[in-house]
Amino acid sequence: MDENILGIIAGILTSVSMIPQLVKVLKEKNAEDLSWTMILVLISGLSLWVWYGFIKDELPIILSNAFAVIVNIILLICCMIYKKSK
Amino acid sequence: MDENILGIIAGILTSVSMIPQLVKVLKEKNAEDLSWTMILVLISGLSLWVWYGFIKDELPIILSNAFAVIVNIILLICCMIYKKSK
Repeated sequence: MDENILGIIAGILTSVSMIPQLVKVLKEKNAEDLSWTMILVLISGLSLWVWYGFIKDELPIILSNAFAVIVNIILLICCMIYKKSK
Repeated sequence: MDENILGIIAGILTSVSMIPQLVKVLKEKNAEDLSWTMILVLISGLSLWVWYGFIKDELPIILSNAFAVIVNIILLICCMIYKKSK
């Protein structure tokens, strides 16, 4: 299989897998089971993956990790809002 | 920065970020906020990333995604055990 197509499919699957978590948190306005530590470390790691993707010039890696960074920034904001209100 | 070192650091960060979630689920024996759908789609996506890593011959991608597959298989098993017992 062409590696770019494989990368794009892999990226779509790992990206899609974050959506239910995000929807659940937004819908239930409950971020109790999310860990701050996890999200912050994850955002750092994902940002480095985006950088790695740029160096290697691999679009699937750049796109899927950039998407993951955005999702996790939203989750972090949710954490800040929902945990503060308790 | 050397791209392999960058990839390894990125891989360590994204791998480490999964540990608190796993520890929390194992400790509290509570997998309520985990979504089956998410974990299954994620395992498929991560497995494709491992495949992508093999095609591209990029060790950081292979190692970090293989680790993520293992963590998510454990989370899936937790889901099966803890949700069943309720």
